[in-house]
Amino acid sequence: MSKLTPINADFDAMVRRSFAKQSMMAFIGAEVAEVRPGFCEIHLPHRDELLQQHGFFHAGATSAIVDSAGGYAAFSLFEEGDGVLTVEFKLNLTAPADGDRLIARGEVVKPGNTLTVTRGEVLAVKDGREKTCAVMQQTMMRIVGRPDVSG
Amino acid sequence: MSKLTPINADFDAMVRRSFAKQSMMAFIGAEVAEVRPGFCEIHLPHRDELLQQHGFFHAGATSAIVDSAGGYAAFSLFEEGDGVLTVEFKLNLTAPADGDRLIARGEVVKPGNTLTVTRGEVLAVKDGREKTCAVMQQTMMRIVGRPDVSG
Amino acid sequence: MSKLTPINADFDAMVRRSFAKQSMMAFIGAEVAEVRPGFCEIHLPHRDELLQQHGFFHAGATSAIVDSAGGYAAFSLFEEGDGVLTVEFKLNLTAPADGDRLIARGEVVKPGNTLTVTRGEVLAVKDGREKTCAVMQQTMMRIVGRPDVSG
Amino acid sequence: MSKLTPINADFDAMVRRSFAKQSMMAFIGAEVAEVRPGFCEIHLPHRDELLQQHGFFHAGATSAIVDSAGGYAAFSLFEEGDGVLTVEFKLNLTAPADGDRLIARGEVVKPGNTLTVTRGEVLAVKDGREKTCAVMQQTMMRIVGRPDVSG
Repeated sequence: MSKLTPINADFDAMVRRSFAKQSMMAFIGAEVAEVRPGFCEIHLPHRDELLQQHGFFHAGATSAIVDSAGGYAAFSLFEEGDGVLTVEFKLNLTAPADGDRLIARGEVVKPGNTLTVTRGEVLAVKDGREKTCAVMQQTMMRIVGRPDVSG
Repeated sequence: MSKLTPINADFDAMVRRSFAKQSMMAFIGAEVAEVRPGFCEIHLPHRDELLQQHGFFHAGATSAIVDSAGGYAAFSLFEEGDGVLTVEFKLNLTAPADGDRLIARGEVVKPGNTLTVTRGEVLAVKDGREKTCAVMQQTMMRIVGRPDVSG
Repeated sequence: MSKLTPINADFDAMVRRSFAKQSMMAFIGAEVAEVRPGFCEIHLPHRDELLQQHGFFHAGATSAIVDSAGGYAAFSLFEEGDGVLTVEFKLNLTAPADGDRLIARGEVVKPGNTLTVTRGEVLAVKDGREKTCAVMQQTMMRIVGRPDVSG
Repeated sequence: MSKLTPINADFDAMVRRSFAKQSMMAFIGAEVAEVRPGFCEIHLPHRDELLQQHGFFHAGATSAIVDSAGGYAAFSLFEEGDGVLTVEFKLNLTAPADGDRLIARGEVVKPGNTLTVTRGEVLAVKDGREKTCAVMQQTMMRIVGRPDVSG
């Protein structure tokens, strides 16, 4: 990934404002941990309500945070007032999401005027050790002339 | 899709028992509406906690139920005692998930001894009218000798 | 799939003209068999140059024709003078591509002003019997103001 | 990607022998440039027969070599006598494949006993400058007890 330059110097606050409006992120307990130009990291602590039947995080939780991490990685390069939509994403679940929390990282692979391609990764953190449990490839769309329509 | 024959005559109860163990499905309010051999339909009523910033369902909710619908479509053809894992899925979001509830349908395209390929669709129901808001293509894996490890 | 209406009444010739300009399709021996609004079927006869080591069609041949079938399904709904680009596609190979020829079918799932989502299928025909060997989900982009840039 | 250890010390020759049996790779002019444990690079020089209508490489050529690069990255970690199958791949085309040649690189993200997940990238080289034109995410399957069935 080449170095990416944000159009909006206030990109960090722009991302966090949008994230704060997504009720589902608060509902599951997800938080934005870090924003850089073309990069976003989201954390999700373990909760008994987010599991499948063996005590691992549900794939729905994994996909929710990594889709958002990739989406906000793209959004960080947009202008204030632009909207952002997930066109599609593809997720491989590579290990059980077994941990005290999940860390989802999204980064822009190819920025574009209309479409932005990102890659993502989810780490399960258990007893201080990180293990990759999912990898993603995603296409985001910039919507001009409408405020943020992410999600 | 050719007609699919379940190995386990009790496939409907097998699917519902597994679904009931997934805390996240109960947490978001998802319910199994129908199970047939190689087919599963899951419903998700509108809740204020499942949205993004414009009042549409969050992509995380959409992907959670369609991944499960495809997974249980595959699982319906397995034997009692088999486990099931999502290998990967790819989701296109084709319209805003704007509605009173979502309906996710998964069906088996190609059953297999180890891998099963499914397709899925999500409909947003608003004022009694259905509109497709997402389509999915998915790979599931059967795990022999371990009880259901879905999710 | 709801019934799709072409903007260009001459869509069949528009698709075939574009296809004829793709040297790779001629090189491998692929032919357009049928065009309907939002649908395209491409045939590929068996050739010793298109195989992997067991006499089956190479995945590169399979993906080349089904990407084109989906792309021209989308293109059939465009205006004369529009360009078309593959944004991305995802292909599951569900059985060996073992046959006298391959038949790739693409159809539009969701037409759009900018993005069009399609699904595709590849059948291997052997001794007169068809068997699905691949399924695809694809995103195409319409480019306004530039002639066809497909491929 | 953690460091990957090949089971077969002769992995380089094993990959090249399998590649040499794929008639389609020779037909389009693709060559294996480099093999490392969990990594494979394939080159494809420009030929007039591999293009779409604007002089860029056809997406079928791009996908053929990156699918093979990812597949042989996985295969490099297998035992002599194992077979290898592409389960599925997802490809984003991020720029026109405009160049004197294409370079496809595949690398293993998550090795596994049955399934191996890889990522791939295609660079278009023009006048000595490289530009990414495609990124891929792929699932490969190891087949035990049958010789290489790749492709």
